Amino acid sequence: MRLTRTDVEKAAAAIEGRVRRTPVVEAGPGIWLKLECLQYSGSFKVRGAFNRIVAADLPASGVIAASGGNHGLAVAYAARALGVRAEIFVPEVCAPVKIAGLRALGAEVMVTGAIYAEALEASRERAAETGALELHAYDQAEVVAGQGTLALELEQQIPGLDTVVVAAGGGGLAGGVRAAFGGDVVVVEPELIPTIHEALRAREPVGVAVSGVGADALGASRAGRIALDVLQDRVTSVLVTDEAIAEARRTLWRDHRVAAEHAGAAAYAALLSGRWEPAPGSTTAIVVCGSNTDPATLA
Amino acid sequence: MRLTRTDVEKAAAAIEGRVRRTPVVEAGPGIWLKLECLQYSGSFKVRGAFNRIVAADLPASGVIAASGGNHGLAVAYAARALGVRAEIFVPEVCAPVKIAGLRALGAEVMVTGAIYAEALEASRERAAETGALELHAYDQAEVVAGQGTLALELEQQIPGLDTVVVAAGGGGLAGGVRAAFGGDVVVVEPELIPTIHEALRAREPVGVAVSGVGADALGASRAGRIALDVLQDRVTSVLVTDEAIAEARRTLWRDHRVAAEHAGAAAYAALLSGRWEPAPGSTTAIVVCGSNTDPATLA
Repeated sequence: MRLTRTDVEKAAAAIEGRVRRTPVVEAGPGIWLKLECLQYSGSFKVRGAFNRIVAADLPASGVIAASGGNHGLAVAYAARALGVRAEIFVPEVCAPVKIAGLRALGAEVMVTGAIYAEALEASRERAAETGALELHAYDQAEVVAGQGTLALELEQQIPGLDTVVVAAGGGGLAGGVRAAFGGDVVVVEPELIPTIHEALRAREPVGVAVSGVGADALGASRAGRIALDVLQDRVTSVLVTDEAIAEARRTLWRDHRVAAEHAGAAAYAALLSGRWEPAPGSTTAIVVCGSNTDPATLA
Repeated sequence: MRLTRTDVEKAAAAIEGRVRRTPVVEAGPGIWLKLECLQYSGSFKVRGAFNRIVAADLPASGVIAASGGNHGLAVAYAARALGVRAEIFVPEVCAPVKIAGLRALGAEVMVTGAIYAEALEASRERAAETGALELHAYDQAEVVAGQGTLALELEQQIPGLDTVVVAAGGGGLAGGVRAAFGGDVVVVEPELIPTIHEALRAREPVGVAVSGVGADALGASRAGRIALDVLQDRVTSVLVTDEAIAEARRTLWRDHRVAAEHAGAAAYAALLSGRWEPAPGSTTAIVVCGSNTDPATLA
């Protein structure tokens, strides 16, 4: 069943008070930045993580996820806040600083496998053994609905909002926003990771190669089916270069003092590079979706 | 004549639309962060700069200021926005990156003198020649009133706000906030720069030594008279260690993804270090007043 605004409204009620209502700031006439980079755990992913966990009948073994990135941090953060045990599987290539970050949030970190797919497989085997609740990074209904709560906030924060511009990896955030929001949705991806773009053309998830500056946070090689169901219509798909993403990230810091990771600057890159233009007189929200970055690289 | 709330209300009307209404985010029960670090030019100083410039009958020679820091950036920013010529005097010790930043904002930068006092003296001589409007960093009524507009925003943003905690150098921001706000005001300074603290004890501006991590932005060796007039009563003065400031700055980034300069973290340091405690059940706004920092030093 296709995800609806009602699902997102239920998610918003379920996670109320658990996530930050992140602020918006004006960045030009009719252009607003949604500072989801200030969200707990440093990205929007806590919205979906909380919604999935609070909706479940939790076993004593708690929750389990595979991710050395934003999803892992979000699951660890939400689990700690809810007093739930969390096991996070990461591949051996995961940077020690990220493992330390997960452990600092109280998660048990399992380093398994050479690449992400192996860590994911190990997490699934472990979940089958323990009965722990699996949290997928983007392809579960509660996760997608949770991410969409960002759009409900935007509607309240920006009266007359016409368009939401949002980056996509597997499509969890974009799908949630599309399900919830009545206006236009622009989905932005790096040219080097056109996951949703290719899925929309094929009208089904297809495997794409993953590389470039967005790979750590937008590097889903296949679109989520739940997200794709809602994204199939009423979406403008835009691709941007890595150079445009890097430039947008520098501009966010220089002109707005907003600290964003590359993925968090991708949506803004669509505007700055001219790949996408707002309709004259319209009001646009650009989602700055994450800030899990080394700040030394901002300037 | 002592600065009043009416002066600040007039300033708010005068600079409306020129400065960003910076957002607030909750940082704990009854604790809000005012993200003035997202202000144009990277600090609250544009509020006072705009108010001083728009209130004046400007000569063709424009405006003039002495500062290699937040005040200089703010004057350059406001002058450019208003289409006004700006000369900024900085001492020879001023970092090339700061000079480049001022020039990028369109200011004419004059590098004069070994120390700040000599640059200031040169700017005064130049102003006497050209008739340019001088902008003092903190001791002019329009400047202090402009900074106080931050408190009017806080009242609207946080219903039932009891206390504003704010860092002070020469006292421009603290004085403006005290003039405008009906509740309690806590003025925080580094132990190594107790400018307002000593002035309150002496009941007049006295010279203090300046050193430590806050020196670049809070390093006024003497309190402003206009600010001190309003700060003389109804203020709690708190001193914090440089270590507490550095720790608060790291915490702002780690837990809230807020990028602040050391001065911008000083107010939060008063709370985190326990040097100041909110009354039980009260509501507090902590002003994160600037972000003109090398982001490489945030983590």
